[in-house]
Amino acid sequence: LETALRSLSGEAVEINASGRTDAGVHAMAQCASFHLETELDCELIKARLNEVTGRDIRILSIERAEPRFHARLNAKRKTYVYRIAVGDKADVFERRFVYGYPCRVDIQAMKTAASFLLGEHDFKAFCSNKRTKKSTVRTIYGIDITLENDTLTMRFTGNGFLYNMVRILSGTLLQVGTGELKASDITAILGSMDRKNAGVTLPSTGLMLESVEY
Amino acid sequence: LETALRSLSGEAVEINASGRTDAGVHAMAQCASFHLETELDCELIKARLNEVTGRDIRILSIERAEPRFHARLNAKRKTYVYRIAVGDKADVFERRFVYGYPCRVDIQAMKTAASFLLGEHDFKAFCSNKRTKKSTVRTIYGIDITLENDTLTMRFTGNGFLYNMVRILSGTLLQVGTGELKASDITAILGSMDRKNAGVTLPSTGLMLESVEY
Repeated sequence: LETALRSLSGEAVEINASGRTDAGVHAMAQCASFHLETELDCELIKARLNEVTGRDIRILSIERAEPRFHARLNAKRKTYVYRIAVGDKADVFERRFVYGYPCRVDIQAMKTAASFLLGEHDFKAFCSNKRTKKSTVRTIYGIDITLENDTLTMRFTGNGFLYNMVRILSGTLLQVGTGELKASDITAILGSMDRKNAGVTLPSTGLMLESVEY
Repeated sequence: LETALRSLSGEAVEINASGRTDAGVHAMAQCASFHLETELDCELIKARLNEVTGRDIRILSIERAEPRFHARLNAKRKTYVYRIAVGDKADVFERRFVYGYPCRVDIQAMKTAASFLLGEHDFKAFCSNKRTKKSTVRTIYGIDITLENDTLTMRFTGNGFLYNMVRILSGTLLQVGTGELKASDITAILGSMDRKNAGVTLPSTGLMLESVEY
């Protein structure tokens, strides 16, 4: 994107995305901001970027923002979705975006476990980065769990997520669903602030950044 | 599948699919038949095959058939779908299954052109295999064309299709849609029995075998 914008405007452009996603994680609607001195029409930029970028990047829309707008610093809420094919086998056409894990899950137990995660907490136990000096306090506004056509969907909305946090939350909730963990374990896991007490980190395959709100 | 069935039954098993699809063409529901002397439960075979095959093959169902049933010889109707993203760029998550071709299309002209293809015809002009000694007569029961959310969908149902036939039919209809060909050209193309008069062969990407009926 930076190379394309540079060739379009002649300026050295820096792109700021709303955040990084782990390798292998998908994004339905990543947001990014950049500053351009050159006066260019948004629709023109969009068309040109879509032409020069590969088929795995698609610009959905470009909007003019306030001069001080920054896609990461101004992000208010992010929504991630983790999908698991719990039936005998994942749909072949979805296999790159859905984690295949044949199992039976207790949705009600998962919903109960999820309720303990809502609100503001120190999520250090759900973060892979051990030596972070930055705050590990985040707020989760909602966790929506559904099971439809053998696809288990967990949708997380929060003000931000730590490194691997959604994958660890999903793994922990899945383990509650299969009975390996109890819903009532969640509070103790949170309180321990220790990654080894939480559940597994699920593969990046099933994770998708769905939206970023400002 | 043959290797897996052999290891499951100890028999040398031959799989007969409903037909071949060109390299790169997808199949939502390919059908195949095989004979097994060993008495094995269908659900057991299905579960074992799904375990040992890769994530790009999924057995949807296994049914017991008449002893003389043959997936290719007994096929009555096949439905293929060709999808084209005609907007600025194809959805990144669909890019392997939808052909990206930004253009404006006249759906009504395409539907008129399609109507000339219905019924029994010699489709030699729509076949890539020049020196076939076999009959090139086929019957098309229906061609359904829709444009929704910038996705152009062409659905063909017939008693069988020649080599590359659906891709050439789709290319020809697309060229009618863009105005490169006229709907009224179809009859002359069919009558010429000459491949070079028909439209382009579209890439395999957008083609999907949707169903086989018996």
